[in-house]
This record gives sequence, C-alpha cells and structure tokens, in this order.
Amino acid sequence: MASTRPFAIIAGVGPGTGAALAYKFSSAYPVALLARTPANYEPYVDEINKSGGKAIGISTDLSSSSSIQSAFQKINSEYGNVCAAAVYNASGRFFRKSILDLTEEEFTAGYDVSCKGAFLFTQAVMPMLLKATEGGVDAKYPPTLVYTGATASVKSSALMSSFSTGKYAMRALAQSVAREFAPKGVHVAHAIIDGVIDIPRTKEWLKDQPKEAKISPQGIADAYWNLHTQPNTTFTNEIDIRPMLEKW
Amino acid sequence: MASTRPFAIIAGVGPGTGAALAYKFSSAYPVALLARTPANYEPYVDEINKSGGKAIGISTDLSSSSSIQSAFQKINSEYGNVCAAAVYNASGRFFRKSILDLTEEEFTAGYDVSCKGAFLFTQAVMPMLLKATEGGVDAKYPPTLVYTGATASVKSSALMSSFSTGKYAMRALAQSVAREFAPKGVHVAHAIIDGVIDIPRTKEWLKDQPKEAKISPQGIADAYWNLHTQPNTTFTNEIDIRPMLEKW
Amino acid sequence: MASTRPFAIIAGVGPGTGAALAYKFSSAYPVALLARTPANYEPYVDEINKSGGKAIGISTDLSSSSSIQSAFQKINSEYGNVCAAAVYNASGRFFRKSILDLTEEEFTAGYDVSCKGAFLFTQAVMPMLLKATEGGVDAKYPPTLVYTGATASVKSSALMSSFSTGKYAMRALAQSVAREFAPKGVHVAHAIIDGVIDIPRTKEWLKDQPKEAKISPQGIADAYWNLHTQPNTTFTNEIDIRPMLEKW
Amino acid sequence: MASTRPFAIIAGVGPGTGAALAYKFSSAYPVALLARTPANYEPYVDEINKSGGKAIGISTDLSSSSSIQSAFQKINSEYGNVCAAAVYNASGRFFRKSILDLTEEEFTAGYDVSCKGAFLFTQAVMPMLLKATEGGVDAKYPPTLVYTGATASVKSSALMSSFSTGKYAMRALAQSVAREFAPKGVHVAHAIIDGVIDIPRTKEWLKDQPKEAKISPQGIADAYWNLHTQPNTTFTNEIDIRPMLEKW
Repeated sequence: MASTRPFAIIAGVGPGTGAALAYKFSSAYPVALLARTPANYEPYVDEINKSGGKAIGISTDLSSSSSIQSAFQKINSEYGNVCAAAVYNASGRFFRKSILDLTEEEFTAGYDVSCKGAFLFTQAVMPMLLKATEGGVDAKYPPTLVYTGATASVKSSALMSSFSTGKYAMRALAQSVAREFAPKGVHVAHAIIDGVIDIPRTKEWLKDQPKEAKISPQGIADAYWNLHTQPNTTFTNEIDIRPMLEKW
Repeated sequence: MASTRPFAIIAGVGPGTGAALAYKFSSAYPVALLARTPANYEPYVDEINKSGGKAIGISTDLSSSSSIQSAFQKINSEYGNVCAAAVYNASGRFFRKSILDLTEEEFTAGYDVSCKGAFLFTQAVMPMLLKATEGGVDAKYPPTLVYTGATASVKSSALMSSFSTGKYAMRALAQSVAREFAPKGVHVAHAIIDGVIDIPRTKEWLKDQPKEAKISPQGIADAYWNLHTQPNTTFTNEIDIRPMLEKW
Repeated sequence: MASTRPFAIIAGVGPGTGAALAYKFSSAYPVALLARTPANYEPYVDEINKSGGKAIGISTDLSSSSSIQSAFQKINSEYGNVCAAAVYNASGRFFRKSILDLTEEEFTAGYDVSCKGAFLFTQAVMPMLLKATEGGVDAKYPPTLVYTGATASVKSSALMSSFSTGKYAMRALAQSVAREFAPKGVHVAHAIIDGVIDIPRTKEWLKDQPKEAKISPQGIADAYWNLHTQPNTTFTNEIDIRPMLEKW
Repeated sequence: MASTRPFAIIAGVGPGTGAALAYKFSSAYPVALLARTPANYEPYVDEINKSGGKAIGISTDLSSSSSIQSAFQKINSEYGNVCAAAVYNASGRFFRKSILDLTEEEFTAGYDVSCKGAFLFTQAVMPMLLKATEGGVDAKYPPTLVYTGATASVKSSALMSSFSTGKYAMRALAQSVAREFAPKGVHVAHAIIDGVIDIPRTKEWLKDQPKEAKISPQGIADAYWNLHTQPNTTFTNEIDIRPMLEKW
C-alpha cells in the first residue's frame, strides 16, 4: 500500500536555490531531489539524511519524457503517491547570441527545459498533488507547485531570445495550470526571480557591490515555503523577488 | 527621548483585512490603527490591549493632509519615531456608474483615498521607516510598507473608472516608492487582492458557493506578515491574492 | 439646427504633437484646438484657415470643469454636435522630485491634467462622438477618441510619482471608456509615447545622436489618423510608439 | 545580379488574414505566399497575377528548417534579396485539452509553429530586411517584420496551454528581435489579435451576433500595412486588435 505521508520534490537542484529549497522543505517532508548530474544533489541528500531528515536523489534529464517517468517511478516506490509540494527550478543552457547566430538547437534549448520539461514534470506530479487534496491524507497545507521564472519571464531583451522565449512560455504554462487546478485545490505559483542569485557560480559577479545586490537562495526558499503555507482561500499565483539594490 | 522600540501602523481599519492585520502585527509590535470612524477600530484596540498587546486608535481622514499629520503627531508622542511596518489599506467610496453619470466629485473619490491619501501617508511614514534602517534600533526585519490594491489595479472595466483610476495610480505610487526607497533598505510592496474578501459586509455575496470562493482576511494578514519578514536580499514587490475558486 | 458635418477636437495643443495633430485632422475635418495659452494654438489656427481648412482655437484650462464646459459650448455653437475624432493630448506640469520633497499640490498636478481633465473632457465629448454613430450623419469612420500616454503609463520610476500616477490613471480611464463605449461604436485608444518627441522644447536633448533617436510629431499624428480610419470590426485599443534608437 | 526591387513575404496563408495580407501587400510589392498546402495560396497567387500584380506560392512546412531554407532559395532566385515587408502569420494545430491529457507532441505543437517556426523564418528573412536599409535600394518605408499573436499571447487560460505557451514565446521572440534590429532600421511589430476573425472556418461561430462581433481580415491587413508605412522615428512595436463587440 502506498504511503500517505506527503513528500516534496525539487526538480533542478544545484548549489544555490535548489539546495536551499531542499533544506527548507526537508524540515517538513521527505524530499526527492532531481538533477541531471548526481554531484548536483549528492551533498544535500547526504547532509539531509545525516541531520535527521529524509532525502533521495535521482539523476534526471528534465527535458526527456522517459527520464522524468523513470524518476517518478522511483519516487513512487520510495515515497508513495501523495505529493505535498513540488518545485520546478530548472533552466536550460544559456546563450547570449544574436538571432542570426543561434543554431536551431541553441534556440530551442531554452524552451526544452524551461517549458517542455516543466510540462512533462507537471503531468507527472499533478496526480500526486491531487492525491493530497483527498480525504485520509495527512496534508497540512494545500498541495503546491511552484515554477521558477526570471527577469526574462516578463522582459525579452536583445540577444536573449533562447532564454526568454522559454521563460515566457513557462509563465504561460504556470498560468494555465493554475487556472485549471486551483479549483481542485492545488496551489500553483510562478516566481519572477529578478536579479543575480548569490551562488558559487556568480561569486565574481557584482563584486564591487555590497551583498544586498544579490538574491539569497535562502530567501527564495523561505518565499516558496510561505507560498506553500497559504490556505486555499488565499492563493498567491505570482510573486517577484529582487535584492534591495536591484534596478528595475 | 523618543522610544526606539519599533511599532506598526495600519491605515484603513475595519472589520476584515484591517482587523486581521491589526491582530497579526500586534503580536510583534505596538500598533496604531487609523480609520475615519472610531467604531471601525475600537473593538480591535480594546481586544489587543486586553490580551496583552498594545494598541491605539486614531480617527483619521486619510484623504486630508492635516488629519494625517495630526495622526502622526499622536503616533510619535505615543510610540516614538521608529516604524517597523506600515500598511495602507484604505479605499474611497465606490461608484459603479457610467462615465456619463459620474459627478466630478464621485470620479475623483477613488483617487483621493487610493492615491492622494496613500501619498500623504507615505510622506508621513517614510521618515519613520528610514529610522528603522539606522544603527541602534532594535529592528528584526527590514522596515516594510505595503499598499492594498485590487483587481482594478490591473484591469479597468466598464463603469469602474472612479475606482480603477485610483487603484492604477496607487500601483504607480507603490512602484515609484519601491524604486526610490528599496536602495535605502525599505521594503515596499503592492498586493493585488483579486476577489471578494470574506467580511461582514460581503456576507450575502456568493452565498451559493463554498467558503473557498472568498478570500480570508487572515490569509491576507499572513501574506503581508510574510512580506515583512523577507530579508533585504529578497524583496517581493508585488503579489496577487485570490481564492481557489476565483476565475481570472 | 445643429450642423451634421463632423469635426475634430485636439485638446492640449502646442508646438509638436498637438500642432501635427491639428494639421493632420484639419485635412479632413474642421478642427477645434484647445490649450490654456492662446499662443499655443494661434499660429496653427491661422495657418489652417489660410490654407483652406477650418480651425478655431479656444483658451481652456483642461483641469477645470467650468472651463471645459465653456469650451464645448463654443464648439457646439461653431461646429454643431457631431464629433468625428477627439484627442486628449494634455499633460500637467512635470516634477522630478523625491516623494519626500513633493508638495501635495505638486503631487496631484499629474493626476489633475492627465486623468481628471481627461475624464472631464471625455464627459463633454462623448455625447458628440455618440452622435456620429447615429443615422443621418456623414461619418466616414467610426468616431474616435485617443488619449496620449507616455513611458510613465506603464513604468513608474523613482522620482516620477507625480507624472506616473497621473499617466497610470489615464490609462485606466482609457480602458474603462473603451470597454463602455466600443459596443456603442466609439473607437477609444490609448497611445504609449515611449521616447523624446522632437519639438522645439527638446531641441537640446540627445544632441549627440541622429534624428532617429527622437519621435517625430508627424509620425504620431499619422498613427492617430490611422487609428481613426479603422473600421468597427478592427479596433486597436493600445499602441506604443518609439524611435528606432530608443532603448526599451 | 540580384534584383533590388523589394518584395513582401506572407508566411501562413489561407482564406482570411493571410489572403487579405497577400492582396494588400501585392498592391505595392511582388509577394511570396507560404503555406504547407498549395490549395491555401493558389487562388490568391492566381488572382493577384491576373489582376496585374506579381505573386508566387511556395509549399512550406514552417516548423522545418530545411523547408524554410528551400523556400527562401526560391524567393531569392525569383525576387532577389531585398525584402520590404514580411509577416509571420502561422499558428500550429490547436488543442483544447487538460494538461493531463495532452501528449508531448500535442503540447509542443503550439511552440513548434508559433515560436520555433517564427525563429527560423526570422533568421531567413532578416538578412533580406537588412538589405532594404542599405543604400542603392528603392525602399519607400523601413523594412518591416510583423508577427501575428492572439489573445493567448497575453492570457493563458485553462486547457489552452499548448497554444498559449507557443504564443507567449512568440511574443518574447518579437520583443527580442525588435530590440536587436530596430537600431539597425528594421521595424518589428507584434499584433495581439483578440477575437474571432471572420473567415470561412468561423462562419458558424457567433452566428446570433452582428458582424461587428468578428474581426475583418481586411482590417488586419490595413493595420499591418499602416505599421509598415511608419517612419523610423515612429515605430509601433505592439498593437491589439478586436471587434467593437468583443469583451476584454
């Protein structure tokens, strides 16, 4: 018999937002962490399991239907089929190039992960989120699905078409999913992360500025958690997040 | 000598959102509750003071500069000049009328409270919020100013021009204030309340629907509190809020 | 008996957009040009009358109900009551100031002209536009009302609150008016003028750049005329306009 | 030697908007009409050639890079390499389905035509549009590229995710292309067609309403033509279009 203890899934884990989300949600739920490269989730799986939480990591290509299906079979056999919270936090490779210089593969790379992958993930996770709205389940909060967007979700600059087309499309997906499943009790939200996140990869960026020029991953994780705890009378479907020194 | 214990101000108190905000913020701060009619804040002032919190109520016409100044003198003499959080939650009278039928006074009523009043309130409270960013002050979170908007902040329907022009203008104010004062450490946010709030006045509305068709005032208060607790690396400047059964 | 020959009204005339609109619409209609200062319309009234068109100028304070009513009485006695096209092209004084430094009068100056004046103008002109949808009138195109917005209609920067609150509110007005009166056959449009207009007052601006860095008033006038000629199966309710070298 | 007489390309031709665009632009330019099915362009090619214009039709799969390249080779050998105006008017198959019921292929169908195809088309046509900005070319207006969007470009409803993700992504593409190529003199615009277009396929829709409940294809064609004639000091980058009776 499948467990009815709800769990959380973070798709797109790496040092930064994904790790912060993993720690945050693991304080309440067993977590499944998805990333293509095991090195991107292994340290957090270990750390969470050592400190009394429960975590599994699954190597997943989030632009591939079969890879996502395989990941959800593992989740199901480990944790059951009641999902409390899921975050789609993946972005594809990033190309800053003229329209004239992008290959077709480079152009579609943004969409493949930001939107097609988000769709495939949504299809797989939604039945588990709907389970959490049913009777007999120990769900404290409405089941929640959050998509991580970016500045490029609402502004499409020159040379950014691969990334921004994917992120605009992800926002459309989030809105359509919210409108379809909110009436069934699933809380769907989209976050516009507008600024540089303070992670190892961006260490050299904005070096001449104080730390308030970058977004803290913990702050993002807290914001997503707060979305999760909203009651079904008070769903927030979109938030923006930026550091105090961001120009916008 | 002025106290350095930070306080909170809720402008536009009545049964519903204002009362919920008053209770929520009074659990952390002394609160000042502003409304034109004392009956709109008295029960909450009494209740908060009885249950171990601290509250004062001040009769204020939020479209009048002199009335707002007088209110802030009282706040200053009671609580000092360090404000942790302020909410502008007022709306003017509501007219559902054709452009051709509105008097000039009716048309400008929306702007007078939603925008001019919000401006006057911002001018009065901002120096107190800036105080909370200074050294020697016991501020746990970045000082926060939240404006309460509505569906009409982003959609202007037929017959709604008085209300929507005021709410669009308020949103412009919130964005300008955010851009000016975020770099100084003040968190400014705008909330789009998209739905019917579940208050005594709306008891008869949507009667044939379950309670998830209306927004709970407590949910709004929790959302504003969560905005307040965000660190200055992770400011959310706009949220929307709607019940799970809302069409949007 | 009132004339049934339709006329056009340009409110907010001066060298630049207003003058270009006056010339453009005078090639098809008698025009009434409104501005506070007669020097702002006299040259165009003279020029249009000399070159075979028909124009009158009326000194009008567009933030004053009585001044607008008086202007429309003059229009009615000169031209009758069938208006083919009206443009509200006025903005109030401009203040680039901190929220903390604006007087109440300075803050509300933006709204007074951009929104309250636009409302008063709309109330006065709408019955004349509706006349043009009736039988027995020689109207070639659906009667049209265009409001001139700005970058600040959709982006509210620091220090720009007086202007942007007025322009956001004007956009709300335009949308509400469009939704109320389009079903009655009146075409209502809002134009976001995003850039510096090439007029005498801006001669010294962007001097180091080619002329394609500024918007031509004639281009704006042509765009408004094209809006006017749209059939009632194909109304455009919002356009943006910027020069090729504008960053946006 | 390649001809320097500029031509126009309409991609996505069928009875309705494509046909109206073909006729409109053929009054000024030789036109190339692209559609997968020859029956969708043949009648217009014949009619234009008979009535003194010049038209060719090319069977093209607009989601296929090689098919688009082959089409542009034909255009180049027939008309040369100076393009005055191009319209991307294609949409993929339409699925009104729950997220849970869409196949991966159905979901991506919206993006494949609305965005990937628009990207491939843009890559192919942009060098020809840039040619029209060079000296020695007989170009009356700035070269123009228009993308046809829809209500779903800015609103993503339940059950519409395949279509809306493609259309949001197309809008992002249009904005990025506009920002990259406007400074080089190419006018890029996006049109939000918000309503039912009056074409043979929609004959039975809205039957109980007057003709002003649907958008006329000729009105769309005129609007695109008017965009094309704007000078480079006055580019409109986005318009909406709806019939007078549309609710919005």
